[in-house]
Amino acid sequence: MNYSSAFIPTLREVPADAVIASHRLMFRAGLLRKLANGLFTYLPLGLRAFRKVERIIREEMDAVGALEIKPTVVVPGELWKESGRWDSMGDSMLRVKNRLDNDFVVSPTAEEAFTATVRDELSSYRQLPLKLYQINTKFRDEIRPRYGVMRGREFIMKDAYSWHTDDKSLDETYQAMGRAYRRIFKRCGLSVIPVKADSGTMGGSGSEEFMVESEIGDNTLILCKKCGYAANVEKASCKDDFTPQPSVEAAKAAAANTPSIEKIDTPNVKTIEELCAFLKTAPQSFIKTLIYRAVNVELDLSSAPGCANLEQKKPSPDAPAVYPQVFFAVAIRGDLDVNEVKLASVLKASEVSLAADTDVTRLTNAPVGFAGPVGLASLPLIVDHTVTGMNDAVTGALAKDLHYKHAAYGRDFEGWAIAGLTSVDIRTVKAGDTCSQCGGELYTKMGNELGHIFKLGYKYTRAMNVTYLDENGKTQMPTMGCYGIGVDRTLASVIEEHHDEAGIIWPASVAPYHVIIVPIKYDGAVKEAADNLTGELTKAGIEVLLDDRNERPGVKFNDADLTGIPWRVVIGDKGLSQSPAQVEIKRRSEKDNRTIDLDRAASELADKISEELESYL
Amino acid sequence: MNYSSAFIPTLREVPADAVIASHRLMFRAGLLRKLANGLFTYLPLGLRAFRKVERIIREEMDAVGALEIKPTVVVPGELWKESGRWDSMGDSMLRVKNRLDNDFVVSPTAEEAFTATVRDELSSYRQLPLKLYQINTKFRDEIRPRYGVMRGREFIMKDAYSWHTDDKSLDETYQAMGRAYRRIFKRCGLSVIPVKADSGTMGGSGSEEFMVESEIGDNTLILCKKCGYAANVEKASCKDDFTPQPSVEAAKAAAANTPSIEKIDTPNVKTIEELCAFLKTAPQSFIKTLIYRAVNVELDLSSAPGCANLEQKKPSPDAPAVYPQVFFAVAIRGDLDVNEVKLASVLKASEVSLAADTDVTRLTNAPVGFAGPVGLASLPLIVDHTVTGMNDAVTGALAKDLHYKHAAYGRDFEGWAIAGLTSVDIRTVKAGDTCSQCGGELYTKMGNELGHIFKLGYKYTRAMNVTYLDENGKTQMPTMGCYGIGVDRTLASVIEEHHDEAGIIWPASVAPYHVIIVPIKYDGAVKEAADNLTGELTKAGIEVLLDDRNERPGVKFNDADLTGIPWRVVIGDKGLSQSPAQVEIKRRSEKDNRTIDLDRAASELADKISEELESYL
Repeated sequence: MNYSSAFIPTLREVPADAVIASHRLMFRAGLLRKLANGLFTYLPLGLRAFRKVERIIREEMDAVGALEIKPTVVVPGELWKESGRWDSMGDSMLRVKNRLDNDFVVSPTAEEAFTATVRDELSSYRQLPLKLYQINTKFRDEIRPRYGVMRGREFIMKDAYSWHTDDKSLDETYQAMGRAYRRIFKRCGLSVIPVKADSGTMGGSGSEEFMVESEIGDNTLILCKKCGYAANVEKASCKDDFTPQPSVEAAKAAAANTPSIEKIDTPNVKTIEELCAFLKTAPQSFIKTLIYRAVNVELDLSSAPGCANLEQKKPSPDAPAVYPQVFFAVAIRGDLDVNEVKLASVLKASEVSLAADTDVTRLTNAPVGFAGPVGLASLPLIVDHTVTGMNDAVTGALAKDLHYKHAAYGRDFEGWAIAGLTSVDIRTVKAGDTCSQCGGELYTKMGNELGHIFKLGYKYTRAMNVTYLDENGKTQMPTMGCYGIGVDRTLASVIEEHHDEAGIIWPASVAPYHVIIVPIKYDGAVKEAADNLTGELTKAGIEVLLDDRNERPGVKFNDADLTGIPWRVVIGDKGLSQSPAQVEIKRRSEKDNRTIDLDRAASELADKISEELESYL
Repeated sequence: MNYSSAFIPTLREVPADAVIASHRLMFRAGLLRKLANGLFTYLPLGLRAFRKVERIIREEMDAVGALEIKPTVVVPGELWKESGRWDSMGDSMLRVKNRLDNDFVVSPTAEEAFTATVRDELSSYRQLPLKLYQINTKFRDEIRPRYGVMRGREFIMKDAYSWHTDDKSLDETYQAMGRAYRRIFKRCGLSVIPVKADSGTMGGSGSEEFMVESEIGDNTLILCKKCGYAANVEKASCKDDFTPQPSVEAAKAAAANTPSIEKIDTPNVKTIEELCAFLKTAPQSFIKTLIYRAVNVELDLSSAPGCANLEQKKPSPDAPAVYPQVFFAVAIRGDLDVNEVKLASVLKASEVSLAADTDVTRLTNAPVGFAGPVGLASLPLIVDHTVTGMNDAVTGALAKDLHYKHAAYGRDFEGWAIAGLTSVDIRTVKAGDTCSQCGGELYTKMGNELGHIFKLGYKYTRAMNVTYLDENGKTQMPTMGCYGIGVDRTLASVIEEHHDEAGIIWPASVAPYHVIIVPIKYDGAVKEAADNLTGELTKAGIEVLLDDRNERPGVKFNDADLTGIPWRVVIGDKGLSQSPAQVEIKRRSEKDNRTIDLDRAASELADKISEELESYL
């Protein structure tokens, strides 16, 4: 391809709103332009790289036996009502009414469309496992789209879904997908951090996210220096001082020498900081008690304190019954934060948030700041593991300006048991905590999620009534997995990881072209040599951009660096006049160039490029 | 690919709403399923064929130097407001408001998005001509989607756009695109009829549609038996009895012997039929006068009868001024129909339709049925060429129950001249009319449009203010072309043209697989031979579907026929036991099979397939 025909409008200026390297460079190197906030046009050079990422993903999906299909982008709202997500998806889902007043959704994800397609075709266990995927347009109506395609409104996602007769089969596919994802990112030249992730309320038993480290990442990763443990903070656990947790009886026994619980006056002392100052002690000595409001709770609460009169509802006919709104008290050591994602998971709730002040006052009979676990009967108390080791603590006394001292877990209070567990892990892990696997020290990184694999379980097959007949002719419901990769984000992350001051440094696997040929002046013998070399390389399957422009060499070199083509060949009269004729080759990732016989250039470059491509396999 | 892993749910039943072959067969052969009315999921087999059509289109676009880009599917409404099409596009365009109350459009076409992308990058004449395309999702909110993907709501379109310094350059690209389109359809195995098409009010000077003959086509094609003239009826012209048209003076002279015009009582006679019966004569003797309402008229009407007080408006700041609503009278020979597309084109109106009865009464001072060209001063009169030869006609007298006889064009009335022309071609051509090119007889076919190439002119570059600097540093506006192909429709048309009672008969170029191998029983030596042959063929670049299912041979043969794979190889114990071992090969398009040495099968099939593929080039 001749540069002059390739429509590569490079820019010297950095777009004002581009704060990260990939955003800046995708604009400057002429890969991308903005149509509107969060909506972008890929220009030819950008689309070439984009298609290579797509191709790598497609090859690896095909290799694990996933079959590509293509549902529509605009899908009927009915399907989302069936699954119950029409209501639960929130405002980021773009809803449309057509002229006939039918509801449609511009797909943010496609569990519904795939499940609906499979539902009508699935009859026998012999069809399972079934793995289907698409690489297709998605839309999420971000309130604040930014960072270029890293957080755009419209994007391309590879989303795969699988259906299985049992957990073992699901796990096999889940593991195979995990391996495919590792290969995909490796082939793109990306260093990803696979982390354990929250599997939410989906009934799934596993979830792994593929993260790249990023200063603007919207995920906190918890990593162990010693054993390689890696998890999203939403999911991460750590070893605390009381692992394994004592039983309620053991805790009670441990409190034998603790003085009896005693009320103390704490006038106008509401926050932990004020209390620490007032009592001259550390937050670790306090039991913090917070009141949470949980939405759509699947837990059975028939025996829970204060819940006798709550009514269950069904969001859709086949979905499990839920309590639309429940309040819980949560007790945790005073220096720690509650992890709301963990809490929601424990409660099997679709969402949790701190209760409003009026609700706190109503439920604790005290102003905000004086909630405590002792004597709390109006709502279920959830106890974090860290509280199980506290047998001489300060905590709120459920009355204005009053706290307790000498409060002891097991003796003075205990938690409401969830599935037999009287304490649970709901703390937010932080840097410096101890690894639960190896005792090493944990640290944090910020990460951007490129991919996510997920055991969904029966959520969609149950809600949308998907069945098959097993070997005995009995009707069964398949279990399900889902597996997503953001293609745009993956491409942008390649640039984040591979660039320098001068521009992009493409890995050969994703490069829009492998070689850029820069004739000093595209004329006479130089033109002839450049055309011949282009021909030779093209014949060898190498993708060549020939800079045929009538520009100064400096301009051409700058554009070659900016656009990041892995190999540059410079052809000039001086080199050609030598015997044998010489050209200069330079790898974009290296500093120095070297001269090479013109007639050896094609085979040398072809070798180097296939060497690099193989290194990713 | 093993059949058992390929998810090809074939059906014996025909879907109830499938009235055309492609719709029936895409469902029955497991290529497609329905998500909702007009929304479909391509299953793996269908998507493979679909991608081949895409690839052919992509190759031919690349070959004419068009560059692929990828704008978003959801585009800002602002762009459509700039072009003026936000208002003019009608209800088939899906409009969406997002959570921030911004307007968006789910793209039905992309003149705006492409022009907006180019506008910011275009600076010099050296960048022109510029040809860009996408193959991407489109949405049109059809009121009555039907015929499967032939008229769906969401579909994939290849749409290309080009920008040029002058008409010559535009014409070169237009011609090259026309040639590329012919190659594309040929490579898909399609017989298309390129027809002259209406270029509407776009200011363009050329437009060609690529049609396939179809019983359910929504276009009437006018074709000449003798010279090959082909046009959409919207555009088609014919030679009438008065070509060339007489001047007004000549017509006046020709009426010298006609008696003076004379009023006749025609009580309660309103229609042409009633009038024919009443006067005992043929419709050819009448001048039919119809009142039309035209919307957004670009013509200069400052000197037109009854238009002195009309006001012009600008739909967008850079668009030309238009009259929002104008009424016209149209005179045509009584046996003919007015072609509204031609009329709109002549009037430079975005739309024309028959005026409401109340408007007719107000403008003609008479009930409906008595309009006539004589003495009509309240609105401009447009005269069809056929009227110019009428010098003794019957026509309405602008009063209840009154007609004129002996009315003569030139003597008793004349048309309002548009650009100096006192008569124009606005008749609908019909079968049996005379070819304007060669005098042959015209006939009609129904056709479905697969592609359309179009000289757009300055409509969008003017409205959206696109400029470049010419060789003299002067600001100029580029002229534009656009070129579309419906990918889904093209695929469905391949099936329409290539099928029989038993199923699809894919051309090798579009076939999801080239060869289906059917082992009589996939076991033992047969399995080994089938696996080996699959390996050999795959190595030779042939795409193989291996029917490994434990089904009766009859079921496998039926599915092989239904799915239409071009070559079938049957392997059984009997053939293998011969020396040398024999297999049976059969071309799907032929009736008979033949036996062939197993060890020659791979090379024979590879030869036959590449022979067929080359035949399309």
